[in-house]
Amino acid sequence: MTVAMMPLVVNGDRLNRSIIQLAEVGQLPNGGVRRIAFGTEDQLARQLVHTWMAEAGMTVQIDAAGNIIGRYEGKTKAPALATGSHIDTVPVAGRYDGCLGVLAGIEVVRTLQEHNLRLNHPVEVIVFSDEERSVIGSKAMAGQIKEDAAHYCRLDGSSIEPCLQAVGGNWADIHAARRDRQDICAFVELHVEQGGVLEHHQKAIGVVTGVVGQYRFAVTVKGRANHAGTTPMGMRQDALVAAAQLVLAVNAIATETPGDQVATVGFMEVSPNATNTVPGQVDLRIDLRDLSQPHLEHLIARFKTEFAAIAQATGTAISLRETLHIEPTLAADFIMEAIEHVCQEMHLSYLHLPSRAGHDAQEIGRITDMGMIFVPSQDGISHSQDEYTSPAQCEQGANVLLKTLIKLDQHYPTPSPQAN
Amino acid sequence: MTVAMMPLVVNGDRLNRSIIQLAEVGQLPNGGVRRIAFGTEDQLARQLVHTWMAEAGMTVQIDAAGNIIGRYEGKTKAPALATGSHIDTVPVAGRYDGCLGVLAGIEVVRTLQEHNLRLNHPVEVIVFSDEERSVIGSKAMAGQIKEDAAHYCRLDGSSIEPCLQAVGGNWADIHAARRDRQDICAFVELHVEQGGVLEHHQKAIGVVTGVVGQYRFAVTVKGRANHAGTTPMGMRQDALVAAAQLVLAVNAIATETPGDQVATVGFMEVSPNATNTVPGQVDLRIDLRDLSQPHLEHLIARFKTEFAAIAQATGTAISLRETLHIEPTLAADFIMEAIEHVCQEMHLSYLHLPSRAGHDAQEIGRITDMGMIFVPSQDGISHSQDEYTSPAQCEQGANVLLKTLIKLDQHYPTPSPQAN
Repeated sequence: MTVAMMPLVVNGDRLNRSIIQLAEVGQLPNGGVRRIAFGTEDQLARQLVHTWMAEAGMTVQIDAAGNIIGRYEGKTKAPALATGSHIDTVPVAGRYDGCLGVLAGIEVVRTLQEHNLRLNHPVEVIVFSDEERSVIGSKAMAGQIKEDAAHYCRLDGSSIEPCLQAVGGNWADIHAARRDRQDICAFVELHVEQGGVLEHHQKAIGVVTGVVGQYRFAVTVKGRANHAGTTPMGMRQDALVAAAQLVLAVNAIATETPGDQVATVGFMEVSPNATNTVPGQVDLRIDLRDLSQPHLEHLIARFKTEFAAIAQATGTAISLRETLHIEPTLAADFIMEAIEHVCQEMHLSYLHLPSRAGHDAQEIGRITDMGMIFVPSQDGISHSQDEYTSPAQCEQGANVLLKTLIKLDQHYPTPSPQAN
Repeated sequence: MTVAMMPLVVNGDRLNRSIIQLAEVGQLPNGGVRRIAFGTEDQLARQLVHTWMAEAGMTVQIDAAGNIIGRYEGKTKAPALATGSHIDTVPVAGRYDGCLGVLAGIEVVRTLQEHNLRLNHPVEVIVFSDEERSVIGSKAMAGQIKEDAAHYCRLDGSSIEPCLQAVGGNWADIHAARRDRQDICAFVELHVEQGGVLEHHQKAIGVVTGVVGQYRFAVTVKGRANHAGTTPMGMRQDALVAAAQLVLAVNAIATETPGDQVATVGFMEVSPNATNTVPGQVDLRIDLRDLSQPHLEHLIARFKTEFAAIAQATGTAISLRETLHIEPTLAADFIMEAIEHVCQEMHLSYLHLPSRAGHDAQEIGRITDMGMIFVPSQDGISHSQDEYTSPAQCEQGANVLLKTLIKLDQHYPTPSPQAN
């Protein structure tokens, strides 16, 4: 009986106990979790995961970027099949974002170990450093690191060097973290959807088509501050009236243009922000995401045309500055097919959807074949203490991950055993 | 020759020197002025004005509200003709707002004094306490004081009692500051327009028809915070999109409804205000002003109808809380006519307009006949270091004030001298 034919399943109880146990590290009074990357709680959580990896029969190494790499050797010295995600969190997080991917990876290896099974390929479970802010872990592995350490300084202004050192990394040697297709033939990340699409369509599994590209823009609208009482309506250059038109233009373009793009004005600051003063300036930020780079460029051109018309009509000046651009990463066709077949075999409903949030898989997808498996997020909520994915859904996701890795093990070539 | 027939004019150079000298108290490096009510600079400025009043032959008293009352006796013991304004400022002010009205009043008395003239009525020049924030001085004089001292606590949370004490007032006796028509038969305030209407229409003098009534509302728009990447456009309850519609509705209603109303959203705060989060809540404030109370109520009803439709269309909840309501005060017909006739006699262009900013005259107008004279503000700018009214315009305003008081002196009855 080959591995691919065995009715192998993960231990769902064990997986969900691990999720609960990890969530106790950095637990907040409101039930949420805070484990800011490189902080005390993150370090404690890293130790816990390190221990679990070793107990599951993995050798554990920490690379220069502080990524924890647990490796379960295969029958051959072929490139690894890798999985994993992150265990750092936003300031108020739930217990699933990132953690599910890491713990499901460990659970997959535990399952192989307790059945005394080895795949043809080594299996790696990777905990990437600081996914929630700098994404330095997966960027380093993908060779996307910027030379200037200042780029990675922390929110409090402190330097990245001691942060990496505290978790076993080394900024001076950061390029050593880089890997390629000869090391990792495929990377599959299980993650909670962080949106409401699967729940809305009542599907168990999301077959991710890619991780969207993202642009961010800082926009400044300059009008003229003046007395809110004494300035007649017709004599105003109200920066907030112009900014309101801009918010609605961004929303309308994103809503009405055919496609799956999302665009958001999530940040806005009004100046001088006094009840009795016509706003003189508004600073706001636009976030735009789509799976197609040409489509992103088309949308940005439309924004610019609209903004020029708004500036003209309101007597304001509107300037736009690009502050972030991340290219989209598409999932490998064969990995999507493998996930789809696993769902069919397991009689799980599924649909294809892009990931509109950034993930470590977006970076790793730049150096090797990438795929992602989504499980539903209740009410689409994430980055919140209310984030929830049921134990059964977590277990289903881990089983899809296990069976997908087994399919990939058959697909990717391995050297003949005697070549080792 | 009667007083009314004399070619009496103020000394413009002296007036403008006083304006410059007062502006040196609390001068900022950017050329602006900061004299927060009751602070050190305000106290120094009060001493200076007190001295000038005494030098101009006035007896000077300070009432329980800290108002400085300079009194130049008349030929009879009739109720006073009063003028004045304030010398406290916003945190970054110019040199004209308030100060012009006080210093022109003193200059009027200086002019009477140097011509050895007395009107039939006593003339009072009043410096009202804290016009820029609590308006406690003119409110106390108009009997509009709230019982609870906490209502007047300072921005830094400190109590009003020591503030009043520092300038010679007395909170415990605040009601003693109240006056009525038997004390003051008319009050005329000269002030810079703080808007651009006079300049736009190239008029020298504004005959103020009244001080607008004002409403302020605190509005909360509640949507649902969510991930800006993972939440499809059609599944959002974006509080900022709703708030943007609200800003435009307020602006459209104020712009398109016939009338002279102004409405402004000057304050807005977005929560959580993160680039990658669909806004969950927006707090904003609306300022609405008009000379007609029924028209104000009509506009508020229209706002409420629009806001309900926006809430419905965007899936948000919009709540409105009234935080301020000041009733309009109309100028007395005879005082407007007097100002108009003076302008005609002086060959000064003029127009009638409401004051859309609050002034001490608004409160004093509740107890006696009130009128206001406006002079132009360059570019309509006020509450700024760039506030500017030319020396010639200041002088014209002071002369219109002088001649208006002389006309009112003829108009209001006085007891026969032998009755004294």
